[in-house]
Amino acid sequence: MSADPRLARLSLNQRTTQRWSVAQAVDGCVRAGIPAIGLWREPVAEIGVPAAARLVTDAGLRVSSLCRGGFLTAADDAGRAAALADNRRAIDEAAALRAACLVLVVGGLPPGSRDLAGARQRVADALAELAPYAAARGVRLALEPLHPMYCADRAVLSTLGQALDVAEAFPAEQVGVVVDTFHVWWDPDVWRQIARAGTRIASFQICDFLTPLPADVLLGRGMMGDGHIDFPPLRRAVEAAGYSGDVEVEIFNAEVWATHPDQVLATMTARYVDLVLTD
Amino acid sequence: MSADPRLARLSLNQRTTQRWSVAQAVDGCVRAGIPAIGLWREPVAEIGVPAAARLVTDAGLRVSSLCRGGFLTAADDAGRAAALADNRRAIDEAAALRAACLVLVVGGLPPGSRDLAGARQRVADALAELAPYAAARGVRLALEPLHPMYCADRAVLSTLGQALDVAEAFPAEQVGVVVDTFHVWWDPDVWRQIARAGTRIASFQICDFLTPLPADVLLGRGMMGDGHIDFPPLRRAVEAAGYSGDVEVEIFNAEVWATHPDQVLATMTARYVDLVLTD
Repeated sequence: MSADPRLARLSLNQRTTQRWSVAQAVDGCVRAGIPAIGLWREPVAEIGVPAAARLVTDAGLRVSSLCRGGFLTAADDAGRAAALADNRRAIDEAAALRAACLVLVVGGLPPGSRDLAGARQRVADALAELAPYAAARGVRLALEPLHPMYCADRAVLSTLGQALDVAEAFPAEQVGVVVDTFHVWWDPDVWRQIARAGTRIASFQICDFLTPLPADVLLGRGMMGDGHIDFPPLRRAVEAAGYSGDVEVEIFNAEVWATHPDQVLATMTARYVDLVLTD
Repeated sequence: MSADPRLARLSLNQRTTQRWSVAQAVDGCVRAGIPAIGLWREPVAEIGVPAAARLVTDAGLRVSSLCRGGFLTAADDAGRAAALADNRRAIDEAAALRAACLVLVVGGLPPGSRDLAGARQRVADALAELAPYAAARGVRLALEPLHPMYCADRAVLSTLGQALDVAEAFPAEQVGVVVDTFHVWWDPDVWRQIARAGTRIASFQICDFLTPLPADVLLGRGMMGDGHIDFPPLRRAVEAAGYSGDVEVEIFNAEVWATHPDQVLATMTARYVDLVLTD
């Protein structure tokens, strides 16, 4: 592994190289001198949690996050029970993987519902059940506010301030928040909310915001430098708030996925140094 | 014209029936019993401002808004001068049309720029030049915060609170704000900001938020009832804040545009009564 000190906090979110298995992504990180990885539950399940845990441990990588739990907005009892059960499994997996946090994408409106306030309340209610379970297993939950364009179908938490309003009902070591540049860069209040978040920041994820947005708006996440985000001020704000954890590059993008993953890691490492670490 | 009192505040934004000329849209409103119209500059220019003004006056329609001025974020002197000149023309047109307001879509980041704070400052600077010009002609400017997904390429004002921060540097009768359900429905702070806006609300525009968003995200504006927005609470909040003006239906949507405009007006009128006016 490279000892390049500039990469000491860089992490590869596994979805950025989604054609790679866990083993391939771990090897790729080692080759590229990237010391941490953000895992996803689905590729982990393909080999089983113990095998995945062994791979990252043997490679000396940190697990900066496990993606993801959440989807807590079901309005019916069966849907709610199923979501809680699945999140408990995700918490168990995060514990076994020694992930720094379990990222929660909270879910959108149930089909046919227009009750946004109700959906938001159900997220808070579900967290009250999950936070003690997670705490008992040493897992930190990380609420991820998503860009408002996903409010209807993916996450009814749309701003960092709103995520903090929910998280602050719990101890900071139990429920933190994710600051993801793609989701928050537009927010005029983001500077104040990052400062407010302080050490409640459990994860810092980066990628760029592209225009025009692609037909599938989930894939508008681009390589740093290909879009509109000015990264250094956000990185500095997160650090000033007290976050010293990994900086995880998470890109969902058809072109990136079509590129050889080793090339993606080379580009991502160079752009990280040139466009994120600069002052 | 119908005397249906439930339609007393309904307005057709002309883009909803974009295949219609001004004359056709005016006639359509009269046939449908819709007492107000939101005009766009381009179709107005096709017949000239005096002819358009005559058409709406002769039909007894109110002009609830003129769309649109703005695009005030150019960083170079020439771009800035051109934008100010175009906005002065738009103000003159709004005065001649006796429009209740001139809607301003403020513009996104200039090409290649990542300086969001700078772009926002230039909006405020340009307004300081335009507001007195508009006031002298009896025209009210209406800052429209756009959904955050348009922050990079269309409007660096993304929330109602942020638009109010800018507007409040001016008298309320000079610079108001637009509350557009599509742009603000997701905002957890919208209720507080609508109350704060009070009589600074210069326009209330409605349409639904569709998922999945279409390939061109500008066309995700749907007919009321086809998406995720709960309209009555927003209408009531705007009324409680002191707004008693028109409720303008503005839909950009390929299917709506492919439907015969008379049918669009029939659907829009029925949905307005059933889904917006209900308590």
